[in-house]
Amino acid sequence: MNVLAVGSVALDTVETPFGRREEILGGSATYFSYACSFFAPVNLVAVVGEDFPPEYRAALEKRGIDLAGLEVRPGRTFRWGGSYRYDMNEAETEFTSLNVFEGYHPRIPADYRRSGYVFLANIDPHLQLEVLEQVRRPRLVVGDTMNLWIGLKKEVVWEVVKKLDILIFNDAEARQLTGEVSLKKAAEKIVRAGPEHVVIKKGEHGALLFSQKEIFSAPGLPLETVMDPTGAGDSFAAGFVGYLAKEENLTSSVLRRAVIYGSVMASFNVEDFSLNRLKKLKKGDIEKRYREFKDLVSF
Amino acid sequence: MNVLAVGSVALDTVETPFGRREEILGGSATYFSYACSFFAPVNLVAVVGEDFPPEYRAALEKRGIDLAGLEVRPGRTFRWGGSYRYDMNEAETEFTSLNVFEGYHPRIPADYRRSGYVFLANIDPHLQLEVLEQVRRPRLVVGDTMNLWIGLKKEVVWEVVKKLDILIFNDAEARQLTGEVSLKKAAEKIVRAGPEHVVIKKGEHGALLFSQKEIFSAPGLPLETVMDPTGAGDSFAAGFVGYLAKEENLTSSVLRRAVIYGSVMASFNVEDFSLNRLKKLKKGDIEKRYREFKDLVSF
Repeated sequence: MNVLAVGSVALDTVETPFGRREEILGGSATYFSYACSFFAPVNLVAVVGEDFPPEYRAALEKRGIDLAGLEVRPGRTFRWGGSYRYDMNEAETEFTSLNVFEGYHPRIPADYRRSGYVFLANIDPHLQLEVLEQVRRPRLVVGDTMNLWIGLKKEVVWEVVKKLDILIFNDAEARQLTGEVSLKKAAEKIVRAGPEHVVIKKGEHGALLFSQKEIFSAPGLPLETVMDPTGAGDSFAAGFVGYLAKEENLTSSVLRRAVIYGSVMASFNVEDFSLNRLKKLKKGDIEKRYREFKDLVSF
Repeated sequence: MNVLAVGSVALDTVETPFGRREEILGGSATYFSYACSFFAPVNLVAVVGEDFPPEYRAALEKRGIDLAGLEVRPGRTFRWGGSYRYDMNEAETEFTSLNVFEGYHPRIPADYRRSGYVFLANIDPHLQLEVLEQVRRPRLVVGDTMNLWIGLKKEVVWEVVKKLDILIFNDAEARQLTGEVSLKKAAEKIVRAGPEHVVIKKGEHGALLFSQKEIFSAPGLPLETVMDPTGAGDSFAAGFVGYLAKEENLTSSVLRRAVIYGSVMASFNVEDFSLNRLKKLKKGDIEKRYREFKDLVSF
């Protein structure tokens, strides 16, 4: 079933201990759509400026991503600059230039309104709400957010959260949104507010899936080289939502496997800058790494 | 088979968001011995002062821990004070008073020299070497260390590490000792130096077991309340070594299960100050929590 992804498409300038790359293809919806396209057809809704490089558009089209919802507005594409220190755990934002994102309101093309699966990638929660007003009874709505929005618009973030079926975000954001140190307590607070499930990503330490009655812990794959963590969370969400879009029922085992597919996609994503590793990815690689995760935790 | 444990016995003053406790029973060998006694008979070698409270000695004896190697020297018992902030991830040391530990050299009682399993809990690596000179061909030698010794005596720590069969320490210490960010690379460096296996503890994020050809990832159990993390690493080592002491061969599955028993003991330990949670522990609790870990990761 088709997945509708709404978020940012950006030109990133990233510096990690492995080097610096300027104006590379990035953005939450970009990483999500690209990684998700290995599992399900993706309809992308986002905005770029007139300066958006044709080769970046071509890269997305090559994966069959539907770009009818990728609006081109006069002006410059959204830009983000960030750097990672030695431990690669968190990006330090160097600059954010909203550019065409300023005054942007997502318009969901008529064909997309009946998408079965909706992923609200990390963007202004007001825009996430606007998307939800335009879609018609999707089977599943999954959403992400970030510390910036929790800091600036906590109440709007909560409004979005209440409308989600599944919230995916990271441990620091879970603690920031709920004020709970215990991730278990944080997840309980969220599940009480609306979502049936919460996925809390923990970077190199894996991810936790909380449902009303159970918890699942997915490991992080110990990697020799993490070249650039940018987009890891979006790739995670992509494997997760993409796998769910192929399944009929949201059973506990389906959800657990989806978390592992998310972890698989994130583990590939961080092995190179931008989409470089995902561009080389073959279907067989995904299944091979899935089995590595299985072996990693079995006892 | 008997386990010989050498390390510190201390009076701790600990402050966490859940309260402050003064002069409670602590120390690396204390936590280890107490938790290990649920799996195997333990011979404890350490030193205390004349002020060591009889009720603390009685608590250890009650678990059948052999205290023939617990030397009483003139002076005061070793004291440590530490506090934990909101996130409970790392203790901030407030004070360390070596007291009777100054000038102490562990003497292994003749009866203990043929112990099958030796655990070198966190103490000065020079003392760890002295212990190894006194024991006779143990089946397995497992050791721990800490950031303090890596900082002060890195070469001596390496000397100890080379003589170990299994090194257990935490992620920050692994990075500090090896200079590698990637835990995988850090473990490879250690395995090249001598130990066949390395266990890297990651606090609430679980633990990784590295062998020459495989990696095992154990989850952290998401707990509602972590009251005091002091001794979690020692309790982990206790479940790990204690389980191994009951098994004939160090197969991959035995080692993996040992890591889970370590995680089980650590998860209990942090639920209360000092040994308070472990004092209430029943054998059935251990097996029940083992099954919770199994369920937590299965997919």
